Amino acid sequence: MIEAEHLEYFKTIVGDENIYSDKAHLIAYSYDATCEHFEPDAVVFPRNEEDVSKILAYCNEHKIIIVPRGAGSGFTGGALPSSGGIVLGFEKHMNKILEIDMKNMVAIVQPGVINMDLQRAVEEAGLFYPPDPASQDYSTIGGNVSENAGGMRAAKYGITKDYVMAIRAVLPNGDLIKAGKRTIKDVAGYNISGILIASEGTLAVLTEITLKLIPKPKLTKTAMGIFPTVKDAMEAVYKTMASGITPVAMEFLDNLTIRAVEQTFHKGLPVDAGALLVTDVDGNLEDDLNFQLDQIEKVFEENGCSEFRRAKDEKEAAAIWFARRNASPALSIYGSKKLNEDVTVPRAVLPELLEKFYAIANKYSVKIPCFGHTGDGNVHTNVMVDGSNPEEVKIAYRAIEEVFQATVDLGGTLSGEHGIGLAKAPYMKMAFSDAEMELFKSIKKAFDPNNILNPAKMGLD
Amino acid sequence: MIEAEHLEYFKTIVGDENIYSDKAHLIAYSYDATCEHFEPDAVVFPRNEEDVSKILAYCNEHKIIIVPRGAGSGFTGGALPSSGGIVLGFEKHMNKILEIDMKNMVAIVQPGVINMDLQRAVEEAGLFYPPDPASQDYSTIGGNVSENAGGMRAAKYGITKDYVMAIRAVLPNGDLIKAGKRTIKDVAGYNISGILIASEGTLAVLTEITLKLIPKPKLTKTAMGIFPTVKDAMEAVYKTMASGITPVAMEFLDNLTIRAVEQTFHKGLPVDAGALLVTDVDGNLEDDLNFQLDQIEKVFEENGCSEFRRAKDEKEAAAIWFARRNASPALSIYGSKKLNEDVTVPRAVLPELLEKFYAIANKYSVKIPCFGHTGDGNVHTNVMVDGSNPEEVKIAYRAIEEVFQATVDLGGTLSGEHGIGLAKAPYMKMAFSDAEMELFKSIKKAFDPNNILNPAKMGLD
Repeated sequence: MIEAEHLEYFKTIVGDENIYSDKAHLIAYSYDATCEHFEPDAVVFPRNEEDVSKILAYCNEHKIIIVPRGAGSGFTGGALPSSGGIVLGFEKHMNKILEIDMKNMVAIVQPGVINMDLQRAVEEAGLFYPPDPASQDYSTIGGNVSENAGGMRAAKYGITKDYVMAIRAVLPNGDLIKAGKRTIKDVAGYNISGILIASEGTLAVLTEITLKLIPKPKLTKTAMGIFPTVKDAMEAVYKTMASGITPVAMEFLDNLTIRAVEQTFHKGLPVDAGALLVTDVDGNLEDDLNFQLDQIEKVFEENGCSEFRRAKDEKEAAAIWFARRNASPALSIYGSKKLNEDVTVPRAVLPELLEKFYAIANKYSVKIPCFGHTGDGNVHTNVMVDGSNPEEVKIAYRAIEEVFQATVDLGGTLSGEHGIGLAKAPYMKMAFSDAEMELFKSIKKAFDPNNILNPAKMGLD
Repeated sequence: MIEAEHLEYFKTIVGDENIYSDKAHLIAYSYDATCEHFEPDAVVFPRNEEDVSKILAYCNEHKIIIVPRGAGSGFTGGALPSSGGIVLGFEKHMNKILEIDMKNMVAIVQPGVINMDLQRAVEEAGLFYPPDPASQDYSTIGGNVSENAGGMRAAKYGITKDYVMAIRAVLPNGDLIKAGKRTIKDVAGYNISGILIASEGTLAVLTEITLKLIPKPKLTKTAMGIFPTVKDAMEAVYKTMASGITPVAMEFLDNLTIRAVEQTFHKGLPVDAGALLVTDVDGNLEDDLNFQLDQIEKVFEENGCSEFRRAKDEKEAAAIWFARRNASPALSIYGSKKLNEDVTVPRAVLPELLEKFYAIANKYSVKIPCFGHTGDGNVHTNVMVDGSNPEEVKIAYRAIEEVFQATVDLGGTLSGEHGIGLAKAPYMKMAFSDAEMELFKSIKKAFDPNNILNPAKMGLD
């Protein structure tokens, strides 16, 4: 419990109306998308960078824990106050798009801006912000940067880190720092933006983010390839990417996922297919898009694709994408509890990875439907069990441990886009050596010597 | 001077043949492209990662300074042993392309690989490594990563950091660390690759680098725009980039540079032009390239371009690029000493920046020819004086200080691609606050508590 005098001090900074300490609100702010919950001692809404600085300086002096929080839509508990303390919320005030600088093609935003609001605003201006995590309708840019969010378009356009040009942030001691510029190039000083991205709110509190924008491609086309086996589809993925074409997206659904989507939404999907690949290409010229789709069709057919469906119009494209976008909720037919991981491997070992996952499913007699962003090697791997059956849940966690081990053995990473947070902290030692863990701890200490910022995350404590 | 017992120990690790301690070699390794010189106590050539680890562990224990060195082609003294110690050279043994992984489109290289050797090897395989610093024929990938080298193609393809996927490195205590994977996405743990890039050899010694490759575009076209004034050209630069077209390169030469190239090489350049812009576009379809050039021509003409010359064939393209690539050596007609800076600003303030530079030239009665990578806001700014005249040299340094101040005032950076090293260390406080400098020092200490790795660089000591 936080002492009353501390709450009084915070009130003098942000005003009564910007602090929650009643039970209902503390419960509301105790959750994220993991369904774990930890109540904070209070929720504070800074109005501006100066508030953030004052709050942090005070907390640092009094060793009060601070947990920055975006939309609370994270899958790994990064925004959960697992050791108590103050949750810092940005959705009330620090949620503005400050500037869309058309001349330099950058956007300046506060951390609480919702991803889709930014996408819409820049597209109205004829520009494009590509990172599109599945949570784009509610997740915030501050959260996206803190977790280095990916999305469907990463195969061509990269991920959040590829768009962050500059960051303003407050260090735990209250000092404001600026890192980066509105320039593509900046090699003066250490790359502080680089280390803040994906640092899960453990090093500094972001107060302003400068994002690179690019020209909006004029045209997009969608197609779907139907494959008899997952192995064929996975071969087609890396061979397409290596063929000289870079599709915007190269998304995958396996048979269990196809059946779940069809059973739930009745879209006429081929329920006997081993796998579907959904792909988008974009550009400024019709001929260029057709050229790209011709190449993809060729590689698909060389790798066992039984049918290549090109969407004739936006309606058909939307129907294809509906299947992909609704894969995750549809999986609930297989069980009430889903252990949803986002492991990522080099694309060429995807066939082997999926084979290992299905062997794990067999071994434990659990269903592990897989789908995801195979264009960048990222597979959403879902161990589905009955959440009310503790024995099944125990088995699911054993299966997940083997999923991680298989991924690491194939040169992959525990997380492609969700982060480590609390959920994956126990597996960090599977992926990192003692020397690497020690280095992480030294870096944490360099920024946050009193360990007040989002402690106990990323397996560092 | 290093003690004989230390040299003896190094010999037991790498063998006599991999250590230089004779005067001639110490002089040879005392220089880089700054023309400053500092002799090392010895030059040691590790044969492999294990050698690096043993050398560092020993030096850390005995507080012996280590300066990693690529080709010694840096412009800011980053590889100069300004405090003595051991220079670690990678050109003898650790200079191999270990793998070109076609399936995952990555290259794995040792730090001593020369940039152009890598470019050639991957292009033979049909792939493309875009970063092309002017030093590409001799500079090494280790050096490119340590300085975050840019190049001509950055406007479309980004810079070295955009291609580094993973790094193996040895910490000052001898521990090996691995950061990143052969995957586009990896958000597990802090972004150690991110902070090692551009760290100028001050945090760890790189031993292996994994680089992203992309498909090689099938076609490239070149064009040149002739402008009456620098201001017109600079307006055309940012308006082109914001028009929806992303040229590979958008390079600039001002009148003094045009005259120098013409006087030196007689290529028929328009010596009365205020400025030239040289641009490349690429893609897979002829129509797409023509579409891009049409758009660029349109924007150029709307901004005062008096003539737009499209290269009809490779020979004409080569002639246009000859002028740009030979700008730097041609400038010697204006003076024997060149203070060559690589300041970078947001593109839209380029017109204002160049205006300020010419005002500084007038004020000090010096010539400041400018050229460079304006597509990304990077201007090579050359204060030219008679190096044998100490008074002129003093004035040149005063002019440079104003060049930096003007850049910082316009939201720019001291360095777009050359780094800070020794040469720009005195200006760090112009660009960074005390809090930012303290953070840099804390990070340095987290990696290198005994300050043995390339000390006194980046203004940190």
